Amino acid sequence: MTIEQARQARERLKPYLRTTPLVFSEPLSRATGNRVWLKLESLQPTGAFKVRPALNGMLVHLDQARKAGVIASSSGNFAQAVAYAARQLGVSAQIVMMKNSSPLKIEGTRRLGGDVVLCENTFKDRWETTFRIERESGRLLLHPYDSEETIAGDATIGLELSEQLDSDFTVLVPISGGGLISGIASALKAERPACKVIGVQPAANGSMKKSIEQGRPVTVTPAPSIADALVVATPGERTFAIVQKLVDDLVLVEEEEIATAVRTLAGEQKLVVEPGGAVGVAALLAGKVQPAGRDLVCILSGGNIQPSKLAELLAAELS
Amino acid sequence: MTIEQARQARERLKPYLRTTPLVFSEPLSRATGNRVWLKLESLQPTGAFKVRPALNGMLVHLDQARKAGVIASSSGNFAQAVAYAARQLGVSAQIVMMKNSSPLKIEGTRRLGGDVVLCENTFKDRWETTFRIERESGRLLLHPYDSEETIAGDATIGLELSEQLDSDFTVLVPISGGGLISGIASALKAERPACKVIGVQPAANGSMKKSIEQGRPVTVTPAPSIADALVVATPGERTFAIVQKLVDDLVLVEEEEIATAVRTLAGEQKLVVEPGGAVGVAALLAGKVQPAGRDLVCILSGGNIQPSKLAELLAAELS
Repeated sequence: MTIEQARQARERLKPYLRTTPLVFSEPLSRATGNRVWLKLESLQPTGAFKVRPALNGMLVHLDQARKAGVIASSSGNFAQAVAYAARQLGVSAQIVMMKNSSPLKIEGTRRLGGDVVLCENTFKDRWETTFRIERESGRLLLHPYDSEETIAGDATIGLELSEQLDSDFTVLVPISGGGLISGIASALKAERPACKVIGVQPAANGSMKKSIEQGRPVTVTPAPSIADALVVATPGERTFAIVQKLVDDLVLVEEEEIATAVRTLAGEQKLVVEPGGAVGVAALLAGKVQPAGRDLVCILSGGNIQPSKLAELLAAELS
Repeated sequence: MTIEQARQARERLKPYLRTTPLVFSEPLSRATGNRVWLKLESLQPTGAFKVRPALNGMLVHLDQARKAGVIASSSGNFAQAVAYAARQLGVSAQIVMMKNSSPLKIEGTRRLGGDVVLCENTFKDRWETTFRIERESGRLLLHPYDSEETIAGDATIGLELSEQLDSDFTVLVPISGGGLISGIASALKAERPACKVIGVQPAANGSMKKSIEQGRPVTVTPAPSIADALVVATPGERTFAIVQKLVDDLVLVEEEEIATAVRTLAGEQKLVVEPGGAVGVAALLAGKVQPAGRDLVCILSGGNIQPSKLAELLAAELS
């Protein structure tokens, strides 16, 4: 993915998406002694950054998408984004989701007009089902993280940050398949090479970290995690190569650290952020990132937490 | 309060506060068939718009404030804002609060270094205590809603909106003592006379609406309401006169409508908003505002809801 592709994606998305706010966090800055900024991808339509790659993927191949429809597979946020983008563009969308995906995200995808195909709870079955539908129907396959169009869509966040913050900064990015951090790192290292990019995964699924340590994409068996958006067991080929080349550090966070971050963001910062979107703040609050006096940006990648789950996390704080 | 005072307040506040985001709300626009925008005062330091009037009041009389300290009285959001502003400016702050104020807000005020003086649960005792301290100590009195400095501080929101949105719009503003809506209406009717300003109160406390109907400020006995920030039983003299002259309409919302708005903002929009800050959205969702094809702005004036209360509201949705 080239910086030119990222710039083209940005122009392509402008009629459909607004620049998301980058806000200074008073409570997180006070708590950690840094200058902390939050990029509010949770305020995107469908509540997550995934509308960027979904729209970009469809717009690049719009004729095929309109003629044959699209097929995608997702743990939830990409599913909702594909359904939303498809409705905006007059495209038919089928999305393969595991049966145990977040009910909120399955329901949200259907409400947006997406045709959800449920599969067994394995990545193997999810991909087999997806490829079978692609083959049989001729639908355009939109990859959730490992395609140039997806990474270029994700890179638009990096381009926005580069304009929104003048001083050099360190950005903390959640990792699942690695598309988001690949896009952001590609854009920033081209436009603002002095910026640092740090990836964060739940300790329950350190697939990218383990892959980088072993020098090749490896498959892990993710343990259960409240971060239902960060479940990819094997990094993408493309995203692994980009992370290996461009990302400065990778950090793991524990479940309780993620829960604390979600609680702090709701209680102190007044933002509803899903566990997968809060791992950057979790790493920061847990003291796992040493920013060395820089401005720090946390990408709040999504806000799609089940209200009952948020209620449970907030109530747990008090007991 | 003149538009010139508002402009001066804006310049005065610039070193201390950033312009808050105005975000387009996809879910509220879809649900109501309008173009709905949200002004995120909930993201201000201390989680409410009140830092604007607190800072402005102190900065206008900074010598006196630094020499003698300040005294204020508040149901909570102004208290936290005064404590915050005082700490920023090196000022001693005493704040009179009723014993039954939100524990979150009392605790928040103390944590920011404010010296909280608890009084009985009546406005009479709150004001008597406040005036006594002012008299005995010589502290600078900061009025929560009915002074020129306060209204000018609140007016900076109107100036920001006027820059942030090009098309003419209708703005929905929560009312307690009337300072916020007086400031916003004064700024907008001067800068953007085609904009409309609508005030919203809980039906449990329709003090401003009843006063306007009767042509003079009247005192009501507020019933209990989840909107703990909107409890003033008598509008200010200044604010009453401004609302009478400049505000286009006043609307009342029921408790269940407020609860629905808080739930919708957290669940769909991913924003934590306190009940008093959500009354504009409540009026909109309840169909009590007819925007006639205009852009609609809801001022989300604060986000200081007790986490346990938010958990309760979110859990109630599911039962």
